[in-house]
Amino acid sequence: MSTRAGIVVTGTEVLSGRIADRNGPWVADQLLQLGVDVAHITICGDRPADLAAQLQFLADQRVDLIITTGGLGPTADDLTVAAVGEFTGRALHPDLEIRTVIESVIRNWRKYHDDLPPSVVAAIDKQALIPEGAQAIPPTGTAPGVAVPATDGMPAILVLPGPPHEVQTMWPAAISSDAVVAAIAGRGVYDQRTLRAYGLSEADLAVSLRAAEKSIDGFDELEITTCMSGGELEIVTRFDVAATPAYRSLEQAILASHGDRVYSTDGATIDAVLAELLGDRTIGTAESCTGGMVAAALTDRPGSSSYMLGGIVSYANEVKSGVLGVPSELIEELGAVSEPVAKAMAEGARHVLGADIAVSTTGIAGPGGARPGKPVGTVCFGLAIDGRDTVTTTRTLPGDRATVRRLATSTALHMVERALRGAV
Amino acid sequence: MSTRAGIVVTGTEVLSGRIADRNGPWVADQLLQLGVDVAHITICGDRPADLAAQLQFLADQRVDLIITTGGLGPTADDLTVAAVGEFTGRALHPDLEIRTVIESVIRNWRKYHDDLPPSVVAAIDKQALIPEGAQAIPPTGTAPGVAVPATDGMPAILVLPGPPHEVQTMWPAAISSDAVVAAIAGRGVYDQRTLRAYGLSEADLAVSLRAAEKSIDGFDELEITTCMSGGELEIVTRFDVAATPAYRSLEQAILASHGDRVYSTDGATIDAVLAELLGDRTIGTAESCTGGMVAAALTDRPGSSSYMLGGIVSYANEVKSGVLGVPSELIEELGAVSEPVAKAMAEGARHVLGADIAVSTTGIAGPGGARPGKPVGTVCFGLAIDGRDTVTTTRTLPGDRATVRRLATSTALHMVERALRGAV
Repeated sequence: MSTRAGIVVTGTEVLSGRIADRNGPWVADQLLQLGVDVAHITICGDRPADLAAQLQFLADQRVDLIITTGGLGPTADDLTVAAVGEFTGRALHPDLEIRTVIESVIRNWRKYHDDLPPSVVAAIDKQALIPEGAQAIPPTGTAPGVAVPATDGMPAILVLPGPPHEVQTMWPAAISSDAVVAAIAGRGVYDQRTLRAYGLSEADLAVSLRAAEKSIDGFDELEITTCMSGGELEIVTRFDVAATPAYRSLEQAILASHGDRVYSTDGATIDAVLAELLGDRTIGTAESCTGGMVAAALTDRPGSSSYMLGGIVSYANEVKSGVLGVPSELIEELGAVSEPVAKAMAEGARHVLGADIAVSTTGIAGPGGARPGKPVGTVCFGLAIDGRDTVTTTRTLPGDRATVRRLATSTALHMVERALRGAV
Repeated sequence: MSTRAGIVVTGTEVLSGRIADRNGPWVADQLLQLGVDVAHITICGDRPADLAAQLQFLADQRVDLIITTGGLGPTADDLTVAAVGEFTGRALHPDLEIRTVIESVIRNWRKYHDDLPPSVVAAIDKQALIPEGAQAIPPTGTAPGVAVPATDGMPAILVLPGPPHEVQTMWPAAISSDAVVAAIAGRGVYDQRTLRAYGLSEADLAVSLRAAEKSIDGFDELEITTCMSGGELEIVTRFDVAATPAYRSLEQAILASHGDRVYSTDGATIDAVLAELLGDRTIGTAESCTGGMVAAALTDRPGSSSYMLGGIVSYANEVKSGVLGVPSELIEELGAVSEPVAKAMAEGARHVLGADIAVSTTGIAGPGGARPGKPVGTVCFGLAIDGRDTVTTTRTLPGDRATVRRLATSTALHMVERALRGAV
């Protein structure tokens, strides 16, 4: 019987859709890596009754551990600790050791040297309240976490703050708390592996998986999920370590059928793979419809300055000609969205930036701008590599403006990756 | 008594944190705009028992409407319609009209002209199954939606597909279905207004809100939520239309105290506000640590080509000198992260791009690169505007690499906004 957890994300701004929750996915991923199954994630606002209902729901589902995020702030609508105290029948009491930590964080942060204003004292007092018998986890912001041990019929509850940075910094201490260690003691030892492919459809993969199901011993032990995003197909497999041979066979089967499409077998993302493939070569960009997104992706990674020199966002045709040296006759004659212009942009960027490699994008992200024979979503790409002929390609990408821009960014990165890997 | 809804997001890839859910927030926002309260959002994977448990939980919470997203695909693990059928005690039957629509979409999409392969026929058959007495909503991809009317003790259930684009395109028809119209008939008439501020802390706003609470008649009718993200503070107020005068007083109170920080009173985002303020002036960028993110933000908006000319991503110092004309002595002497370099970058970009306005960023996004007196997070900004003296500023931004880059992007955009608005 596997160990199951539920996650409760609190916050009206998340429930109402005004900000995207970053804690639920992060905590879920951490739990899975620990070998704990995530059964449910629930999101609630600032209403105590709704939070209590969600806790009760998860307890009824007999999860072994509930993890909450958010609602630990100093104001009255931050009610998670009080709600958990009431739900578990544990009175709140001040934890003086934790109170000292919070006060020193706040003094240091707000530069208080003398007496604290009464409102600040009240805020510190509130944040230092811990349910009876629970363990406080030292704050990484101003709010401590709380680990409440399981009792008969009641799962362990780990209460974490709301800011993602605080959650992530607090995590190691949180999962080492006695309550959490005891709750997840029965978990299996799982491994999780990720393959990433570009240009591979879920339907084509499904054909291979059906064949693998028949031929691979222990296939049923593999929990495979696939996710297509931005043209990339992510294949995540989770398995008990005992099923490692089955996973190896699956990986071989996928590589045998789709090896040219798989760019990563160890979960490395495209920017990491590119960094590796570039070695000591330098790269730059020339972007029109992606407007800087390719350059932003190439500078996302720490240390990217060792290979990424920069880019030209040539949104206006005058910049294509003036900075990148694309002949304006070419633009007039063929239009800015054409392979010859993409070629001239890439070559111009390589020259202007002094880079070994340059990739270019020019397209119609929409919603306006369609031309006869060039619908919205048409994007031309160019790739100039020192010592090779410049190559170009055109794609018609589906979706709205944001999607076309995202897919075009991904296409540009993979065009470079495939060329460096020698897959094209 | 307000009308309450619950949202069930399905998908192992969402539950496991591998992709961020885009449907829950979008549907929640739409419901709030319709005057429907969102009580709970729950996320579940592909296990039928977990989905049934979540439906039961929401029914027990006596919501008036449940909306599900995802799990309508052609494969066996797409189980939402079957689960909803079983939960509501309604047998599935083929909807022949919908089947014809799905088949024609698939024929057109996969370019099938002759007989369909048996696997495709099976997929179409599955997607055309609808619970007895429910209404099919025509597909906007290949999967139809389903609206199941409420019965005694059972809320109405609206079943929507997974791809966000399909959900959004299907929405108008979905909320016009008889089942949904009946379920939300009792809702109030609500208004929702959004103020956006930059450089205003939640703590400072809280002081104004406490004063407003005392002075404004009907303040209690206003449901105010605040959210800080990327340095921007969003203040969303939801209220019954009868409380409109109270909202007007609140808005005036906030503007009286923080008017110079509020850049939008109608919910317009920074890119829309900038577009408006720019009028027929053109803009360009020179970016180092933000690596193209400012340019990407300025080209995010349809029609941005009327004011955004382009940008130079000068990640390497050679590009700062070679393309933007920043004197290399300046970089050697003061370092690339310095206000004189930011000034030269902005002026260089204005010149090279031929823009009326240029904004620049140069900073240390981390985790490496700190220098004595220049910790990680130090970012210098320059703003060159035709006919004005170029201005520069330096900020020390908190957080990890991604956060520093995001905050620096936001700071650059707001630096332009404040200058054009005349707030600085």
